[in-house]
Amino acid sequence: MRAVRVHRYHEDPTVDDIAEPKLTGPLDVIVKIGGAGVCRTDLHILEGQWAEVQNPDLPYVIGHENAGWVHEVGDGVTNVAVGDTVILHPQPSCGLCQACRAGKDMQCANAFFPGLSNNDGGMAEYLRTTARACVKLDPSTNPADVAALADAGITAYHAVRKALPLLHPGTTAVVQGAGGLGHIGIQCLAALSGTRVVVVDKNPAALELAGQIGADQTVLADGGHVAAVQDLTGGGAQVVFDFVAEQGAEMDGWNMTAPDGSYYVIGYGGELHIPTLDIIATERSIVGNIVGTYNDLAELMVLAQAGKVTLHTQQYPLDRAVDALHDLDAGKVRGRAILVP
Amino acid sequence: MRAVRVHRYHEDPTVDDIAEPKLTGPLDVIVKIGGAGVCRTDLHILEGQWAEVQNPDLPYVIGHENAGWVHEVGDGVTNVAVGDTVILHPQPSCGLCQACRAGKDMQCANAFFPGLSNNDGGMAEYLRTTARACVKLDPSTNPADVAALADAGITAYHAVRKALPLLHPGTTAVVQGAGGLGHIGIQCLAALSGTRVVVVDKNPAALELAGQIGADQTVLADGGHVAAVQDLTGGGAQVVFDFVAEQGAEMDGWNMTAPDGSYYVIGYGGELHIPTLDIIATERSIVGNIVGTYNDLAELMVLAQAGKVTLHTQQYPLDRAVDALHDLDAGKVRGRAILVP
Amino acid sequence: MRAVRVHRYHEDPTVDDIAEPKLTGPLDVIVKIGGAGVCRTDLHILEGQWAEVQNPDLPYVIGHENAGWVHEVGDGVTNVAVGDTVILHPQPSCGLCQACRAGKDMQCANAFFPGLSNNDGGMAEYLRTTARACVKLDPSTNPADVAALADAGITAYHAVRKALPLLHPGTTAVVQGAGGLGHIGIQCLAALSGTRVVVVDKNPAALELAGQIGADQTVLADGGHVAAVQDLTGGGAQVVFDFVAEQGAEMDGWNMTAPDGSYYVIGYGGELHIPTLDIIATERSIVGNIVGTYNDLAELMVLAQAGKVTLHTQQYPLDRAVDALHDLDAGKVRGRAILVP
Amino acid sequence: MRAVRVHRYHEDPTVDDIAEPKLTGPLDVIVKIGGAGVCRTDLHILEGQWAEVQNPDLPYVIGHENAGWVHEVGDGVTNVAVGDTVILHPQPSCGLCQACRAGKDMQCANAFFPGLSNNDGGMAEYLRTTARACVKLDPSTNPADVAALADAGITAYHAVRKALPLLHPGTTAVVQGAGGLGHIGIQCLAALSGTRVVVVDKNPAALELAGQIGADQTVLADGGHVAAVQDLTGGGAQVVFDFVAEQGAEMDGWNMTAPDGSYYVIGYGGELHIPTLDIIATERSIVGNIVGTYNDLAELMVLAQAGKVTLHTQQYPLDRAVDALHDLDAGKVRGRAILVP
Repeated sequence: MRAVRVHRYHEDPTVDDIAEPKLTGPLDVIVKIGGAGVCRTDLHILEGQWAEVQNPDLPYVIGHENAGWVHEVGDGVTNVAVGDTVILHPQPSCGLCQACRAGKDMQCANAFFPGLSNNDGGMAEYLRTTARACVKLDPSTNPADVAALADAGITAYHAVRKALPLLHPGTTAVVQGAGGLGHIGIQCLAALSGTRVVVVDKNPAALELAGQIGADQTVLADGGHVAAVQDLTGGGAQVVFDFVAEQGAEMDGWNMTAPDGSYYVIGYGGELHIPTLDIIATERSIVGNIVGTYNDLAELMVLAQAGKVTLHTQQYPLDRAVDALHDLDAGKVRGRAILVP
Repeated sequence: MRAVRVHRYHEDPTVDDIAEPKLTGPLDVIVKIGGAGVCRTDLHILEGQWAEVQNPDLPYVIGHENAGWVHEVGDGVTNVAVGDTVILHPQPSCGLCQACRAGKDMQCANAFFPGLSNNDGGMAEYLRTTARACVKLDPSTNPADVAALADAGITAYHAVRKALPLLHPGTTAVVQGAGGLGHIGIQCLAALSGTRVVVVDKNPAALELAGQIGADQTVLADGGHVAAVQDLTGGGAQVVFDFVAEQGAEMDGWNMTAPDGSYYVIGYGGELHIPTLDIIATERSIVGNIVGTYNDLAELMVLAQAGKVTLHTQQYPLDRAVDALHDLDAGKVRGRAILVP
Repeated sequence: MRAVRVHRYHEDPTVDDIAEPKLTGPLDVIVKIGGAGVCRTDLHILEGQWAEVQNPDLPYVIGHENAGWVHEVGDGVTNVAVGDTVILHPQPSCGLCQACRAGKDMQCANAFFPGLSNNDGGMAEYLRTTARACVKLDPSTNPADVAALADAGITAYHAVRKALPLLHPGTTAVVQGAGGLGHIGIQCLAALSGTRVVVVDKNPAALELAGQIGADQTVLADGGHVAAVQDLTGGGAQVVFDFVAEQGAEMDGWNMTAPDGSYYVIGYGGELHIPTLDIIATERSIVGNIVGTYNDLAELMVLAQAGKVTLHTQQYPLDRAVDALHDLDAGKVRGRAILVP
Repeated sequence: MRAVRVHRYHEDPTVDDIAEPKLTGPLDVIVKIGGAGVCRTDLHILEGQWAEVQNPDLPYVIGHENAGWVHEVGDGVTNVAVGDTVILHPQPSCGLCQACRAGKDMQCANAFFPGLSNNDGGMAEYLRTTARACVKLDPSTNPADVAALADAGITAYHAVRKALPLLHPGTTAVVQGAGGLGHIGIQCLAALSGTRVVVVDKNPAALELAGQIGADQTVLADGGHVAAVQDLTGGGAQVVFDFVAEQGAEMDGWNMTAPDGSYYVIGYGGELHIPTLDIIATERSIVGNIVGTYNDLAELMVLAQAGKVTLHTQQYPLDRAVDALHDLDAGKVRGRAILVP
């Protein structure tokens, strides 16, 4: 089959002919890929940023945002059958450790992450995953239309869902960064809460789009944005969702958070410098967020299939994966780039 | 192997020689039984009360409260190995449905209940269960000492744990019925909360024991007990745990519940008759409880292994199972009867 | 001033000239009434149904759903000033008991309920309440437009808000009874959650309206409605909001509730008959609801002022109060009848 | 009356004869002080650290940890009467703002803090506070025995209570700093949860005491303590309560926190430096804590009156306040110094 493989860091991957994946255990599932999202993390993998943490044997196939059709199943698989349309949770979990038993899939003690850990990913014709990663979809769904929800979508949804109990009418939620994830976060907030949504971004076009999909107010990140949010909110937002969290945005996000409020970190790259006095005097919290649970993805698909969350995508044939990666790096992709077979 | 089988309802079961259970799927586990609790539900099975609901093919092996050692595992089992000491959640779950993915094992869409549903139970030398039912114990644990926690224990623990957010210092919890389950409930409340524990029972000896294991006050159920609890609490308890819920206890339990309080139903057999006006005027809740989650059982075992929860047991050899059932029926068992190999 | 007073039960009230209310304590507030809702509870008061429970000295002024302008304040009042537009929580609370300190206004140990308890209500030119009942509104608000939210609105909002953590995408909420309260409940569900809303009512016109304001599906209560909801939901709804809870609707509501689901009682008049076995076997809950908190009302006003919750009203001059009561009794009021000065 | 007043920063206060406080509003309460705790914050006030933030007019009376007897009440006070024994929440709140209505006393928009803000405190014979600060005690309580719970106690209790839902059996809680607050925190954890309590401190004597009052394990903070906690817990504690949070302890506390765990900041003085990647990759949270609610204090008094929480105190006559402050500064006070009339 055709597959996008990294051979050496700091070089483009190549599209190679390799053997199809095989079942290795009773809960394994082979999925024929219908759409594979191209993510900024893929660029970071190529830059070698994940080499030490994940240490995959090269060459390996990247791609961790996948949807498709079930192609083959192990003999312990009961939740999906050959031919089913599925979207894949990016991190197959064991189902047996204490975290899994509490529904905390991302904290699974025995998980792997195809396309990131030392396991082939989904920029290929077929992918090996497991039963516990498969969310069954309406058969008529086009996998390429929803693949971006498998990682970008679930991550934004997870953060919003965790924060919902804090976001009753009369509160304000700030979304910092109206890119792919923020874009979905805004729609989730509009669909699931009565909070006022204030969106902060450097890009006027992103703000304009934000206004169309659920932002109640938008603030240009021009240096005066922390003060502007303070003014709009009378001292800060109850929840700040920081989809950027680098290059200073992280301290902006913290400083836009109201007393008794919560600063939700979703993006990464920057560093917080916070006196403990600032934390206690205002009784604020900082909340980490990483991807989401299986049920988060299932719930997000309910919203997506009801048309309440949509994501603009730009398709590339699998063989043009390198172009897609270059376009992403050059800021030329609007919405999410999706590789299709 | 030897096994206690029901051949006909309304007759004693017999101890038969039958074939050992076999693995039927990759997640199956065969457990050598070290202790099997004898439960009032076993008497109800013999009386035919579950015939219609569960409709098992007779003869079948009863026993749903089991602990022992892992004897054989399917090829998808990764959480336990042959020789491990284990206590068994009574209802093996699939791990794939939405309830399982949220940690709600009892709501699994594909569960079975050995010894109750149409599956052989644990009053035998060996039992077939699955990986998801096995809680691994300290190897030195004697299964016969803990088996009763597999059903009676988990059920009491589950109800108490659900109610903990309501039971801050200054509140009162009533435990109605200080038998096997209530006994564990009292210990869990004492170990896990700062609430005042008031125990209500018809039996003075049960109340005396209750006082030794954590009850702050005891009330004899002599007809004046609802008024007595009202007096002690100034109008009712924040939570009433009803381990009886039959023969009028159910209305007593409701009537001992304070405004804004919750009536937790754990026992069964009776019928509530409540005007909706009584529910709304006082903003009370009625909360159902059934067994518990896998993690509930794992947590309870932490308390048990720390000596914070203990249960008096009375052992019978497996071949004397019928005597154990008769003794239970005649009220001659103190604590829990446990069959041992 | 003019005021609607009950002189004898089972007789029409009369509109009398009486003295204006006076401040009696430092936290008292006199409000000039701009709108007073006419509620079915007012009919029940006239029928003597509340005589024993509340035992007011007759004659007294009814009316417990009020909005207007602050006319005079006690010397401890700091949250509102003369001239402010306000909507009034129906039950002024003390602010000092443990329930008040936890934000549970309805459980206040020292509350009163003007127009229901032995205190004059708001079908009059002026009403005495307290600082803790006043929710300040945008000055441009017309009190007559929002008065119905002070009791009908807050009650529906409170129940929906309590249930929100149970109502993630993929769940179903049933609203039984699409009258005044149900009508607001549907709008709150649509504004605050991603649940599917199924509305059940006997009246096809009410169902048609429900479809326009947020119901995803409607079911005519024609005898087959429990089965219809079971079919639509595959075994019941995660939450059933019962705004009827009388004449058999209460058992219908319980029977439409899914395993692990919750039956929210808001209406009243009927009686539940439920075996405790049914409660535990399915692990369902029954949840009482009564009016709501001060913050519930404040939050609802945010939704109302954003246009997300609206209520059809029909105004009557205060002097025509008896006509309004007769029209309500005869089923001739569409939406809510509001008395205006 | 006699009162301890700060005249100039960086100088000892003096014990002066000044006029007794007067009632200034209907909710005011004058309390005859029976015990006033001496807190490290008092030293910080003398050092001028709070001068800018609170800007009190000098001279003023310090002392923010008080208990005594009600001496005089305003005409709107209904919860206490002259002669009642009371402990005082340190920050009287308004009872009318949205935070107060949600039970969040510390977030009150109109609060003051006697002895810290520009209001005379309790190192005196009498103190002016308000009805909402008074928690009524058993009349036999000696105020000097409980005064330290009014600030040190409530703060530790508040943090523990917030964290309880995270601390089921099988988890580990680390208490960093076994001084006055940590000491109470340990007792609260032992009384209210089944978590394993691991205490970290530099002082072997403090660790020995910790072992006597509820610590399951103790770790000397000798440079290897982060690694020691990692070993004990297999990668970190579910909750770390940091009662130090300065001089590097803050990063130790963060580094002892498990994936999916929470780092509770209670002490202050240091500064966190945390890459956002570390927050998201492990999905950890950082939670600020400041004093506590009125109900926190009321609940803590239930524990204290049941003997479940005790605090060693060392009494000084009011006239020897300066000695008490010097002793505290010199590390010569064991437990808490309390000024008595």
